[in-house]
Amino acid sequence: MIREPAMPTEIPPRSGTAFMLRRGEVLRVIDPIGGQVSDMVAFIADAPGESLSNGRTFDYEETLRLTTGNRLWSNLSRPIVEIIEDSVGTHDFLLTPCSEATFRHFYPGRPVHRGCHGNLAEALAPHAIVPAAIPTAFNIFMNVPIGAEGRIKVEPPKSKAGDFIRLRALEDLIVGLTACSAYDSCGGSFKPIHYAIEGASDAQR
Amino acid sequence: MIREPAMPTEIPPRSGTAFMLRRGEVLRVIDPIGGQVSDMVAFIADAPGESLSNGRTFDYEETLRLTTGNRLWSNLSRPIVEIIEDSVGTHDFLLTPCSEATFRHFYPGRPVHRGCHGNLAEALAPHAIVPAAIPTAFNIFMNVPIGAEGRIKVEPPKSKAGDFIRLRALEDLIVGLTACSAYDSCGGSFKPIHYAIEGASDAQR
Repeated sequence: MIREPAMPTEIPPRSGTAFMLRRGEVLRVIDPIGGQVSDMVAFIADAPGESLSNGRTFDYEETLRLTTGNRLWSNLSRPIVEIIEDSVGTHDFLLTPCSEATFRHFYPGRPVHRGCHGNLAEALAPHAIVPAAIPTAFNIFMNVPIGAEGRIKVEPPKSKAGDFIRLRALEDLIVGLTACSAYDSCGGSFKPIHYAIEGASDAQR
Repeated sequence: MIREPAMPTEIPPRSGTAFMLRRGEVLRVIDPIGGQVSDMVAFIADAPGESLSNGRTFDYEETLRLTTGNRLWSNLSRPIVEIIEDSVGTHDFLLTPCSEATFRHFYPGRPVHRGCHGNLAEALAPHAIVPAAIPTAFNIFMNVPIGAEGRIKVEPPKSKAGDFIRLRALEDLIVGLTACSAYDSCGGSFKPIHYAIEGASDAQR
């Protein structure tokens, strides 16, 4: 029997959510309009303090550019997510979620927002995850080219309407996910993000 | 009155230590032989859960290549250390401390060591810092060039005998510091690291 994939859920502009993703399930993150970023963090459900780690991922994957076939690792050296499909290929794992402090720093004189960090903090609080425990996020669709001498800058995402990434959970995870709030990372406008959770059987397709 | 800088303390090969570094004091980390790496982590003494963050540092410094004039930031957006002098200019802030797991992964068939992560965990335990709280380290003298498509590899350090870096504490910090244990990061041999703490008055020189 061929089933339709789960209907996507919308994360409204400048907001975030958190949910359980069971081992074997696949998270599909979709950019419905194009040019939007979604910050993703993940915590192992039964191991307090163990979470997504950019440093461990760079160690084991030996690249800063993560796409289909790469795995994302925890701070205690467990692979926790595998990228199984990716229609964009440009994501960032260097930078942290935008926050009140980053708005004040990068956009002086413009309205301050609690940003992805504040949105993640609220969404993760019911899971007993404190703000200081939010790690550097895997910033889906975020476009951060590395220039000469290691200089980095944030450019508009390369994602077009309907582009997506699919990530298979390798452990039971608490996932935090946003529709990014910063001016630069989404090219100056604020858009929604869609996501869907495909069951373990859907995930094989 | 001109005083001599504090005499350096030796960190023996493949070991680590932890100590308090007060706001205004300067930590001098020296490579006494050349070609050795020292992993540094830092925790704000009076703020449990607040520690060195590579992601926040990349955010605010807008570069992956940190040297004199750059500051290292905490996960809660506070600058906690400033690099005030640096005779090498090549350090890494992408990769995590080597550990039992990284030895098994990268050096199959060779003797496993608890690595910098294990050494830091032991040294930091009396300060109530658990292993899972050890972040991606600022890897002093570590040479990790970034190649095409973001590929990274570990090459021997560029530091020569007597090379050093000086870091001024901007908050009261608990610092963890190692003489690296991994085969690759120190060019295949294991060497000591020296460090000294210069008082706030020394730090002006």
